[in-house]
Amino acid sequence: MSRPIITFTTDFGIGSSYIAEMKGVVLSLNAEVQLVDVTHSIAPQDIRQGALIFDSVARRFPPETIHVGVIDPGVGTERDILCVRMQNQYFIGPDNGLLSSVADRNTPEQIIALRNREYWLSEVSSTFHGRDIMAPAAAYLSLGLSPELLGEPLDDLIKLEWQKVHVASKRVKGSVVSFDSFGNAITDISRSLLLENKTPPDAVVKCGDVKLKGIFTTYKNKPNNTLVALFGSQSMLEIALVGGSAIDQLKVEVGATVEVLW
Amino acid sequence: MSRPIITFTTDFGIGSSYIAEMKGVVLSLNAEVQLVDVTHSIAPQDIRQGALIFDSVARRFPPETIHVGVIDPGVGTERDILCVRMQNQYFIGPDNGLLSSVADRNTPEQIIALRNREYWLSEVSSTFHGRDIMAPAAAYLSLGLSPELLGEPLDDLIKLEWQKVHVASKRVKGSVVSFDSFGNAITDISRSLLLENKTPPDAVVKCGDVKLKGIFTTYKNKPNNTLVALFGSQSMLEIALVGGSAIDQLKVEVGATVEVLW
Amino acid sequence: MSRPIITFTTDFGIGSSYIAEMKGVVLSLNAEVQLVDVTHSIAPQDIRQGALIFDSVARRFPPETIHVGVIDPGVGTERDILCVRMQNQYFIGPDNGLLSSVADRNTPEQIIALRNREYWLSEVSSTFHGRDIMAPAAAYLSLGLSPELLGEPLDDLIKLEWQKVHVASKRVKGSVVSFDSFGNAITDISRSLLLENKTPPDAVVKCGDVKLKGIFTTYKNKPNNTLVALFGSQSMLEIALVGGSAIDQLKVEVGATVEVLW
Repeated sequence: MSRPIITFTTDFGIGSSYIAEMKGVVLSLNAEVQLVDVTHSIAPQDIRQGALIFDSVARRFPPETIHVGVIDPGVGTERDILCVRMQNQYFIGPDNGLLSSVADRNTPEQIIALRNREYWLSEVSSTFHGRDIMAPAAAYLSLGLSPELLGEPLDDLIKLEWQKVHVASKRVKGSVVSFDSFGNAITDISRSLLLENKTPPDAVVKCGDVKLKGIFTTYKNKPNNTLVALFGSQSMLEIALVGGSAIDQLKVEVGATVEVLW
Repeated sequence: MSRPIITFTTDFGIGSSYIAEMKGVVLSLNAEVQLVDVTHSIAPQDIRQGALIFDSVARRFPPETIHVGVIDPGVGTERDILCVRMQNQYFIGPDNGLLSSVADRNTPEQIIALRNREYWLSEVSSTFHGRDIMAPAAAYLSLGLSPELLGEPLDDLIKLEWQKVHVASKRVKGSVVSFDSFGNAITDISRSLLLENKTPPDAVVKCGDVKLKGIFTTYKNKPNNTLVALFGSQSMLEIALVGGSAIDQLKVEVGATVEVLW
Repeated sequence: MSRPIITFTTDFGIGSSYIAEMKGVVLSLNAEVQLVDVTHSIAPQDIRQGALIFDSVARRFPPETIHVGVIDPGVGTERDILCVRMQNQYFIGPDNGLLSSVADRNTPEQIIALRNREYWLSEVSSTFHGRDIMAPAAAYLSLGLSPELLGEPLDDLIKLEWQKVHVASKRVKGSVVSFDSFGNAITDISRSLLLENKTPPDAVVKCGDVKLKGIFTTYKNKPNNTLVALFGSQSMLEIALVGGSAIDQLKVEVGATVEVLW
């Protein structure tokens, strides 16, 4: 059997040594793992952004990957920490919505609340459950421990409300869900939804004060320093600035309305 | 035997490719290692911060871990590079105090000055001993080389002076030793010291112009955007801003006095 | 056989989760690899900087290392993606000059255009070929696939033009090629070139408005906060500020002329 994979998604900030503390805990229990950082620059306590990252990144990993997510503003309060089996992988994180975007698309096969202190660190802080509860759980799972031993089964997990994409005659209305590291505005309007609705390639995309004619396939369809609407790497509609960052030119924030009209 | 672990703590800056040069040197000698980044955003040449990171992170790693620390303003001068065995692990770094915080709590079992050029790279620059001397030493140790072969034994290493925590009647006086990646002010006042001195939970914590009543157990004991004194993940007293960063509100720097009164 | 090494050099930005998507793709095909981040903070679309990083970092890695570089402003256009064998390693990246700095010093042994869709992901986006074409190619190579199966052989790759270093009587004229993470200005004037031309150690180094007398061997030859010319970790002439960053004091940009006179 090949080495188990454990990934880390946190809001610790990139220079943070807290992530290494978690890795040290894992490696103390199982040194034969493949550790992968997904990102540590989720905006502090931005559960929504963390949920989206899980949803887009986890699907690229093989079955049995163990994903650990620590965006945990409620650390030390009564919220549960979950281990959820979905899409043949394990997701470990606080029950605050962080796992709900994956769960919206993949019915959880098993939800366990990590209440069995036998598999926590012997000393548990009230401010860093990522290290004291989640990291050891991930390590024990990677050693083959049955997840039900980690705690008690639950029926459901906390879900975030997402804005719905509205479809009308010759019109689709969604919103900006995030900006990626290039400054591209990623929307919740999928390529397949537009195809289903027979959106023509010369449709108009509206966002803020900006109106763009046509949905393109690459950044290079337009000259440098112009905005372009295209389908990004997740097959979602995005607005990019060719050769630059769209954030400044678009002057909108996460949540802004995006309309496709034809 | 499981794969040896080598960790890296530097002030190279997060985007620096110098760390990959060190990893390349290690992997050229031993590809079967587990490489872990602790942090590369120690403030440039801040030996003191590096020493504290070593002290808080290394204890989470298993025995025989090899920790490499490159905060080395004296590179190319006569200072020694050390391999020190402490808490059943190896620490490799310049003899400038970087290893002294761990050494304050764990009597070194062995101190070797890395003077044996046989285990250096064949070409040694005068500006990057992390790559040319420390990385190969870590790799050879990971292959099972006896540390005494790397150079000559020393009796002691250079220690940093730390401000002492003062205890008086119903009063403990310490200082801010660092800000973590969330902007929490970490102090040198430990939970166990306060317990020993029977500090009540409603004691007052003073720092700069701020007076906080009560020492709490989680960030969630107070409303958003208020300062809270609590014990952090290392069981040290810290001052945090609920849902934000305490740096701006506290208006103090590392070294500022923190008092607990009751 | 020891585990194959795959490195990543991109302009995705440090917090980007896109790099984890690439790693997920690799690990889905071969979980037994050693993954190493070289850097993800190449300035967006700065092929020139990426080429230099490849050239300085790759030589530190062992034979058979697979280097993946994604600085790809032309993604989705007709440019080829290459797998090039040089210095007994593999380099995978777009044919836009990114691989040309290594190729200037090491005649390519084999150049393959990755046109065989059998080894691409089944669904290929038009904006992220790093994930959809380069990552699987790296994984298949790491499993031992013969590179010629990945596509078609080419005779040459696209080369960047570099400014030449001029040598005259008692004068060498080059330029600043990059600033490293410490703010040191790295030039294209090598130690060996100066030695060949019998440059004395008290030569004058000119850059912008700055004139420095003497080329030193360590940062510590001059007091704090003064500029110093010295040979850096790649044996190239660099200008550093002792105990700080030279960028602000030098007031020059990448490309600025640097002269050595004696």
